Amino acid sequence: MSSLLLFAGKQLLKRALSDDENEIPDVTIPDSDELDESNPVTEEIFSSWALFILLVLLIMALFSSYFLQQKRIQAVHETVLSIFYGMIVGLIIRVLPGHYIQDTVTFNSSYFFNVLLPPIILNSGYELHQANFFRNLGTILMFAIPGTFISACVLGVILYVWTSLGLESINISFVDALSVGATLSATDPVTILSIFNAYKVDPKLYTIIFGESLLNDAISIVMFETCQKFHDKEAHFSSFFEGVGLFLMIFTISLLIGVLIGIIVALMLKHTHIRRYPQIESCLVLLIAYESYFFSNGCHMSGIVSLLFCGITLKHYAYYNMSRRTQIATKYIFQLLARLSENFIFVYLGLALFTEVELVYKPMLIIVTTISICLSRWAAVFPLSRLTNWVHRKRSGNPGAADEIPYQYQMMIFWAGLRGAVGVALAMGIQGEFKSTLLATVLVVVVLTVILFGGTTAGMLEVLNIRTGCVAEDDSDDEFDIEAPKIVTTSSVLSNRQFSRPYSDNTGSRSRQSPNFNSASQEDLLVDDDATNLDDIPPLVPNDANGPGLVSTVQNIITSDDRSKWFQSFDEQVLKPVLLDIDPSTKSKTGKDSPN
Amino acid sequence: MSSLLLFAGKQLLKRALSDDENEIPDVTIPDSDELDESNPVTEEIFSSWALFILLVLLIMALFSSYFLQQKRIQAVHETVLSIFYGMIVGLIIRVLPGHYIQDTVTFNSSYFFNVLLPPIILNSGYELHQANFFRNLGTILMFAIPGTFISACVLGVILYVWTSLGLESINISFVDALSVGATLSATDPVTILSIFNAYKVDPKLYTIIFGESLLNDAISIVMFETCQKFHDKEAHFSSFFEGVGLFLMIFTISLLIGVLIGIIVALMLKHTHIRRYPQIESCLVLLIAYESYFFSNGCHMSGIVSLLFCGITLKHYAYYNMSRRTQIATKYIFQLLARLSENFIFVYLGLALFTEVELVYKPMLIIVTTISICLSRWAAVFPLSRLTNWVHRKRSGNPGAADEIPYQYQMMIFWAGLRGAVGVALAMGIQGEFKSTLLATVLVVVVLTVILFGGTTAGMLEVLNIRTGCVAEDDSDDEFDIEAPKIVTTSSVLSNRQFSRPYSDNTGSRSRQSPNFNSASQEDLLVDDDATNLDDIPPLVPNDANGPGLVSTVQNIITSDDRSKWFQSFDEQVLKPVLLDIDPSTKSKTGKDSPN
Repeated sequence: MSSLLLFAGKQLLKRALSDDENEIPDVTIPDSDELDESNPVTEEIFSSWALFILLVLLIMALFSSYFLQQKRIQAVHETVLSIFYGMIVGLIIRVLPGHYIQDTVTFNSSYFFNVLLPPIILNSGYELHQANFFRNLGTILMFAIPGTFISACVLGVILYVWTSLGLESINISFVDALSVGATLSATDPVTILSIFNAYKVDPKLYTIIFGESLLNDAISIVMFETCQKFHDKEAHFSSFFEGVGLFLMIFTISLLIGVLIGIIVALMLKHTHIRRYPQIESCLVLLIAYESYFFSNGCHMSGIVSLLFCGITLKHYAYYNMSRRTQIATKYIFQLLARLSENFIFVYLGLALFTEVELVYKPMLIIVTTISICLSRWAAVFPLSRLTNWVHRKRSGNPGAADEIPYQYQMMIFWAGLRGAVGVALAMGIQGEFKSTLLATVLVVVVLTVILFGGTTAGMLEVLNIRTGCVAEDDSDDEFDIEAPKIVTTSSVLSNRQFSRPYSDNTGSRSRQSPNFNSASQEDLLVDDDATNLDDIPPLVPNDANGPGLVSTVQNIITSDDRSKWFQSFDEQVLKPVLLDIDPSTKSKTGKDSPN
Repeated sequence: MSSLLLFAGKQLLKRALSDDENEIPDVTIPDSDELDESNPVTEEIFSSWALFILLVLLIMALFSSYFLQQKRIQAVHETVLSIFYGMIVGLIIRVLPGHYIQDTVTFNSSYFFNVLLPPIILNSGYELHQANFFRNLGTILMFAIPGTFISACVLGVILYVWTSLGLESINISFVDALSVGATLSATDPVTILSIFNAYKVDPKLYTIIFGESLLNDAISIVMFETCQKFHDKEAHFSSFFEGVGLFLMIFTISLLIGVLIGIIVALMLKHTHIRRYPQIESCLVLLIAYESYFFSNGCHMSGIVSLLFCGITLKHYAYYNMSRRTQIATKYIFQLLARLSENFIFVYLGLALFTEVELVYKPMLIIVTTISICLSRWAAVFPLSRLTNWVHRKRSGNPGAADEIPYQYQMMIFWAGLRGAVGVALAMGIQGEFKSTLLATVLVVVVLTVILFGGTTAGMLEVLNIRTGCVAEDDSDDEFDIEAPKIVTTSSVLSNRQFSRPYSDNTGSRSRQSPNFNSASQEDLLVDDDATNLDDIPPLVPNDANGPGLVSTVQNIITSDDRSKWFQSFDEQVLKPVLLDIDPSTKSKTGKDSPN
């Protein structure tokens, strides 16, 4: 990440230094004549200041986050401030005259996709509360797949109609309009969830919005790329089905790649003694997880989907084969990298708003787009919520059953539809003559939604009277914080320590594995409540992808009680014995399995 | 780091793809016509494969490391294999014809200094066994400061004389020769220490070599930069004193910057409640530590010295003000980043050997330089060891006392003088018409020393009959491994857990701090033996830097028994109460203080 900083910072400083130095008064900047880049030593000093300033921005963002949380300020959110700091620095750069204007900071989509995004996705998959996620999988997939699809189409149609009116002398094809629709359908998981975390919002609502925004990104990326494939072609009605088929194929294959790599790691950890060298182990887990992302992207598949499911698989299987040190190390490292990436993305978005030189701002288009994304989100959330409620009532067999998603949840899901950096990064890939206009529109709309919706989420929670403070209030903001184990009894910690002793046994006998699993799973119980309820995972999309189509797939999943039991027993009896370093009979004695 | 990978990998792949695809047969590479970089989507796929291949190289290096450790193979070392893997890929790139040859991987010194080096230095400072380090500080400084100086001068003189003979039509100034001498006097801490770790070599020898190689880097960087300042000037005899003065000033100021930033972090953690948000806390500690590096470099000081002492100060003070989660997180994260950087540096060195296009290899010069570095190391190690032994005998007042550094230790210190990536990165900054020749020489010599000395270190330990297996053999290679606490009694873990409970107290009363210190210090005792023996830190260089000169400085430190007591009580009675979140009277009750 620091090279991204380096790159951005250099451009920034080059620009700043070309003019008088009044604007950055608190740092001693070397003389301009020393900034000859041909000499590595001077170049190093030059880039040091650039990095220094960018790290200061990040530190400011993190401090703001701390103060906002400490003072329990609701109106302003950390991400809004990050954007704001970025904008100030961007504005300074913009206002200053000088001949380096072309070199100023640009939002480099390659850095975004290869450096900043993977940690966030990997951490999401790894931190996922699997039980909650899979319990609400039906609803999540409902919003993520048809929801994103509806949103993109509605937005695409509105934009296409608006531009066809010719009021602003831009005229884009329907496929391009749909591309923009896809980029603006990726909702941002960062802001909203950090607010939800702070308020301990009802886990169900949290999980639905979390899951949706996560899969959302993957799906809008796949949709966007599918649209781009039709960019220069004549679009037929059959293209629609071709697109849907392509989409399902990409989603399925990416998912399989991720799961497969996760399983490979689990087997590798099971059948080698790498866990005796926890430093190497941690590095390998991190690197191989990244490989799933790059491999999948390289194969024209969706790296996000692969990495997300690789993270989930790692946590479900490989995690229990790791040494305790690696379990902790990977959690913390993924969290830290994700946190830094998130903050940096928003700083960078703010910067880009003023420093992207090629942008063409069309105010009317921006206003229309902002209104349309509200409309398209509305069109996605409310009908699909009703469908979900209807399906739920049908399944329960009780026509008077309470709504699966009550009205205030629907409203909150609607409100949570702020757009994030993935949209901007995707918009960099828009082709054609109106590239700069569309990119500018997407950028402004993203920043607007973050400021508007992000800033009002906390108030909205109160207005809608949504249950907050659901988890016992804790001093720590982190459910894995070992300072504050939630259900821990001192005896379990004790036994945990004792059980883990066999690790210092040098003989490497197979018998030592079993206690380790105990200790791992026990500690995990402390923090993950009922992580093994994951056992009711339905078979997901792969089994249905080539089946009768989207709606029936979703319905199958929603109504997949039998299937989930099938998967549960398959997981218990086949997968876990093969993948984990433990005999299932031993495992059930640990009390880890809660009866379903 | 991944952007460095990205950069290197792109160049690599661009080169590889310009030719037929036979050489990388196991990956499906997209068609060349898709590699138009103007489209971010295609660019992303392009860079994905590049990153994939580079991560595979890293994974291979780590796996090799595991297998070598597992099979207890002595002859080959991990770093040698990393270089070897890099060389294979570099060779493939080199052998292939094609028009992208100019764009191939180069060893980018800016990436090296800003991305790869800081984690290694920070981790070294943070992991430093402070008690051992400060106990042997006299010897370490003796080898690090006059040792590096002697080594650089001897090497510089030999090179100057050799090139003056005119046998290879290169003719460099004395200052340039001295620059090369300085680059080749930076010994590498990575390879030798991982071998020493594996064999549990006598802690004293370990500490001396570790400390020397660490300070070495800083000192040769400062020396190199001092030389470069005289590059275009006429060198007088007075320049020598000017240089020494400059050097001491840079060293002192850098050290102060690092210590100051460490103290700022300690105070910040003490006087805020950031520890309640451990995720933010970990990020801030990492970012602010990095700031010391960039700030110091930006001020034309030595970032390495600042970062090293910032790490040491963080560990000595700030560490005890952190939440337990941050203590663990920072340790693991610094370790992981350092490990990845180390491996990548060696892969990259191997690559550079074949892919640097501008290199001019002069075989005779390379042979002469290789012989000279052995001579110069000899000239530094053996006389200084005798001086140390003599000073030690004088101090002990017993003329028949055992040698402080016996002969086999001297031989091992000599043997440990393999050169590392810092030298290569510095050599990138050499100016003048013989830049390419000198860089090529440094690169080859570095790789040669790593292969020769690194490969034979294990054997040398046996030949010299040096005590190994000194720490109780443990399954883990990490002294901080929480799987294997060394002195832990279950009751202390229990009390630890209990003491840390007040953290979940939401009132933020000051009283909660004290138990936290207890828990931190207790856990620390488990792993760090007698970390507080650090209290016998002598006042280091700052107090002496402007004093009567180098030799007396070193002698003062060696004979600073009184001073160390002065600093110890100052640290105990003034610094710790101010910087730590604890009342000293409480602290002494915890039994943490061992009487000195």
